[in-house]
Amino acid sequence: MVPFLEAEHAGELDTLSERPPRLALAQYSVINPGLYCHFTTVVHINAQAIRNSNAFQEAMSEFALPEGFQLAMDSWPFGGRSEDDVDDGRYWGGLVFAKPVTPVDSNYYAYPIPITVMVDARTMEVIRVERFATGGVGDGLRPSPRRDTPRKLFEDHRGAEYLPENICIPLRSDLKPIHITQPKGASFRVHSDRLIEWQKWSFRLGFNAREGAVLHDVCYDGRPIFYRLSFSEMTVPYADPRPPFQRKQAFDFGDVGVGRTANNLQLGCDCLGAIHYVDAIDVNSDGSPQTSKTVVCIHEQDNGILWKHTDVRTNRSGIVRNREFIVQFIATLGNYEYILSYTLDLAGGISMETRATGIVSVAAIDLGKTSEYGNVVSPGILAQNHQHIFAARIDAAIDSYETGDTRVVVEDSVGRKICPDTNPYGNLYEVERKPVDEPTWIDLEPRLNRLIKLENTRKKNHVSGRHLAYKVVAPVTQLLLADDDSMAAKRARFAQHHLWVTGHRDGELYAAGDYTNMSSRETGGVSDMIKRPDRFAVDELQLDEDDGHRAHPIVWVVFGLTHNPRVEDWPVM
Amino acid sequence: MVPFLEAEHAGELDTLSERPPRLALAQYSVINPGLYCHFTTVVHINAQAIRNSNAFQEAMSEFALPEGFQLAMDSWPFGGRSEDDVDDGRYWGGLVFAKPVTPVDSNYYAYPIPITVMVDARTMEVIRVERFATGGVGDGLRPSPRRDTPRKLFEDHRGAEYLPENICIPLRSDLKPIHITQPKGASFRVHSDRLIEWQKWSFRLGFNAREGAVLHDVCYDGRPIFYRLSFSEMTVPYADPRPPFQRKQAFDFGDVGVGRTANNLQLGCDCLGAIHYVDAIDVNSDGSPQTSKTVVCIHEQDNGILWKHTDVRTNRSGIVRNREFIVQFIATLGNYEYILSYTLDLAGGISMETRATGIVSVAAIDLGKTSEYGNVVSPGILAQNHQHIFAARIDAAIDSYETGDTRVVVEDSVGRKICPDTNPYGNLYEVERKPVDEPTWIDLEPRLNRLIKLENTRKKNHVSGRHLAYKVVAPVTQLLLADDDSMAAKRARFAQHHLWVTGHRDGELYAAGDYTNMSSRETGGVSDMIKRPDRFAVDELQLDEDDGHRAHPIVWVVFGLTHNPRVEDWPVM
Repeated sequence: MVPFLEAEHAGELDTLSERPPRLALAQYSVINPGLYCHFTTVVHINAQAIRNSNAFQEAMSEFALPEGFQLAMDSWPFGGRSEDDVDDGRYWGGLVFAKPVTPVDSNYYAYPIPITVMVDARTMEVIRVERFATGGVGDGLRPSPRRDTPRKLFEDHRGAEYLPENICIPLRSDLKPIHITQPKGASFRVHSDRLIEWQKWSFRLGFNAREGAVLHDVCYDGRPIFYRLSFSEMTVPYADPRPPFQRKQAFDFGDVGVGRTANNLQLGCDCLGAIHYVDAIDVNSDGSPQTSKTVVCIHEQDNGILWKHTDVRTNRSGIVRNREFIVQFIATLGNYEYILSYTLDLAGGISMETRATGIVSVAAIDLGKTSEYGNVVSPGILAQNHQHIFAARIDAAIDSYETGDTRVVVEDSVGRKICPDTNPYGNLYEVERKPVDEPTWIDLEPRLNRLIKLENTRKKNHVSGRHLAYKVVAPVTQLLLADDDSMAAKRARFAQHHLWVTGHRDGELYAAGDYTNMSSRETGGVSDMIKRPDRFAVDELQLDEDDGHRAHPIVWVVFGLTHNPRVEDWPVM
Repeated sequence: MVPFLEAEHAGELDTLSERPPRLALAQYSVINPGLYCHFTTVVHINAQAIRNSNAFQEAMSEFALPEGFQLAMDSWPFGGRSEDDVDDGRYWGGLVFAKPVTPVDSNYYAYPIPITVMVDARTMEVIRVERFATGGVGDGLRPSPRRDTPRKLFEDHRGAEYLPENICIPLRSDLKPIHITQPKGASFRVHSDRLIEWQKWSFRLGFNAREGAVLHDVCYDGRPIFYRLSFSEMTVPYADPRPPFQRKQAFDFGDVGVGRTANNLQLGCDCLGAIHYVDAIDVNSDGSPQTSKTVVCIHEQDNGILWKHTDVRTNRSGIVRNREFIVQFIATLGNYEYILSYTLDLAGGISMETRATGIVSVAAIDLGKTSEYGNVVSPGILAQNHQHIFAARIDAAIDSYETGDTRVVVEDSVGRKICPDTNPYGNLYEVERKPVDEPTWIDLEPRLNRLIKLENTRKKNHVSGRHLAYKVVAPVTQLLLADDDSMAAKRARFAQHHLWVTGHRDGELYAAGDYTNMSSRETGGVSDMIKRPDRFAVDELQLDEDDGHRAHPIVWVVFGLTHNPRVEDWPVM
């Protein structure tokens, strides 16, 4: 799912022989403490050397490609270290495809070759080539034995082109245009120091290689709400148990970086209206600064009705439309795209949205077979079942920047049994509140409508008498399905609970820890952070007793989607 | 929450004395078998008689209104029949407010008077006036004793005007316009027989007093998907245990009708772009036809990116924007508005959306007190905790209109323990499928990513080999919280489970049964339907054995929101 080719990129193995033999690769991370930015080192490897290696040539001798195809390879994070890799080697994996020579932008994901090339990033040597099982239901976990004669690939395959110039069926011709224009321009202001103001909102826009766009010091009407808001991590484990597919588990933020892979966005294409594009200055793999052009777009949109009320006595309607302000970036990680956005609204709300598009990760399957590990989306093409589990990080500052002034409260709505004194008719439900006083994970409970509130410990609303608060409405989605004892689960403990509340430490920004590439367990992630004996302030009295020395709570929201692919997801979701 | 005033409406009690003394009222339902439409009879009652009744005058003598106010009353469904109402009387309740004489459209919900007038709809007589408790935490369930001297109301109240001409704070001036235009017009066609076509979609638009807009015979590319799609019911139970608030439980479809209360929609106000408005012909309370003007709007909208993929080797991007087609209507039920819509998309998806706006239902609370039953949203104004639980009805016809050709399958994604033979690395999860063979309820399980599929029993996709299907992605929301033995739960059994699968019968359209007004239990609703010994076809073989005589499954999707109001919800959500 999340192969990685840098923008300066690999190209095909064949064509690469014409060019300097190098292949960009997300391999391992180093810390640049000054920037608090973990970046990915690009390893230049010799593609020709891979192609010429005995192991690769022997593996490829099993297959015969049709005319008009060349080889292409996507480099992938290696995945979790297994028993075969007990040394501290630094490896990556190459997924191999056949690519039609024409058209230029042919979709090679429609032609998977069932091998992976495992490469040692230090010596640049092929350490082994792994063959994939291509069987169906009942064929077991291991690849079938090699044949004596080369197997012809893609005899009944269909192309899966998606670009308008590459498909021969007519495009839709009956959609008349919708023009979205802002003749007087945008309603927001972007200052030279990245301060952005829109309506009563203000914030500073950051951008880094790992997390992409980050909002700092988000204020409403001059009052702080969030010190920092970010998308922190995502893991994408695949459910196919046949080795080496258990290694298909990408951490797109930690292994590769959604900032590093962010698209250049263009007016009239990705957004409509008065769009402002923002360049980012990033660190390159050698630590030098580089400019990434137009990687963030900020714009407004109309999103229907914000509120309406009609006085039925006079038929006088009041209505206000829902204007939204959006900070968006789009990352391409090989076959997949992620659209990540922050949306601010007129009612003081803010939402963080992740959307997945692009092309599903596929494997070869023998023609005519079906699989319990995924769905055949085109003859010979298996799209494997998988999950995407994200973590967002919320560093709140509810009307105060002081440590101890922001607390986290879990709030449930709980039904009550009939009781003559308190609930004679049985319609009562009550709101139960539990302040979080120490680091912990929390799972959502839709039957209790569980949500969490970020509250100011001291200040109360003068009308309701309740503590100033922001409510976190977290989506109730499926958590990590991998067995608790599996490598997949050990590497992504963060994905096993919906919410984590941890004590703040400078520089701790990543849910699965700093180093995810080839990790064998989550180290320094939220599962470690909650083991620390921090205490959070839960009320003002306690705060005063402690003289304010309490940890500041950081909230991590985990959500995702389980994707059991459909035929309709092919070729582009 | 759901008081009801018809469009021809009641007006204030005071001003009504100048006009024919009548008050519109949703009271009871009769069946018009020819139309399969249950409509609400409007009862004309004598407002002056209420005002002059001894019970009302005695109750009002407890209060002294400020200068410049007159009385206003919202008629409400009575709610569930209680032990006080063991006869088969037909009652309704009047919520009483004070309304500033000026401005014309003043918001009287900011001035609740803590009584309800209970009226016998047959004799038009006030049968009793109930006093509300106005205390706070620890004050118990019963109203405080009457005082000897009239209590001055609203001394420290604040107005809650929301119309621009009625508020004196300046409006936002820094939002520059967004113009959404369709210079070549809309891309859909509306035929004279209500056949509507857009892209590959076609359907017939229906509209009735109870359900509002209904989609019939929804086809994609000429192949049927749904025989009928509708919003069926909603219940709104309030959680305040103090009598008579347990009666605050509206069934906005069955008690009143979201079609009957649908707004006249106007271009440039509720929607933008090329809008087509549809009139509905409805039955009036005496059974005669009436035209409701422009109660449905149909239009297209741009909703961002549908899909995108960038080939990182060439930086060539493919992108398609997400055009949507929307059928929308808006119902005003006294203080509340519901925005109900069907959205069809370019990828064959359809969604049914319900949004709530308008003004929260409030009760009086003594100044300075707070309540565990809701939130003080303005001095003296308690917005009580409540739920809105909707039911949508799906009558599917998956590529066939034949009974027995559509089946329902429950699909879970289930993690597996490590097992050397089948799951050596622990990353496997499997999709478990259980066809529904008899009527039942189903609860969602987000930990299993439970969803249901509507499948064609016979036909399979030629690529994947799987049965043709539509997936129902139902939101996982909180179910009814009222005690299982409560009147609130007995009346709304439908709201106790996320999904119901029942055997089709002609004319069965309502999740809580035909008659909800003053019901003491759900009769003829989904909880009764599942008791019938229907059998559903689950595979083709079985179908052939039975000669096709199997019940056709109807799916009911239950979803909602628990609303514990915020100060920010006032005066308009």
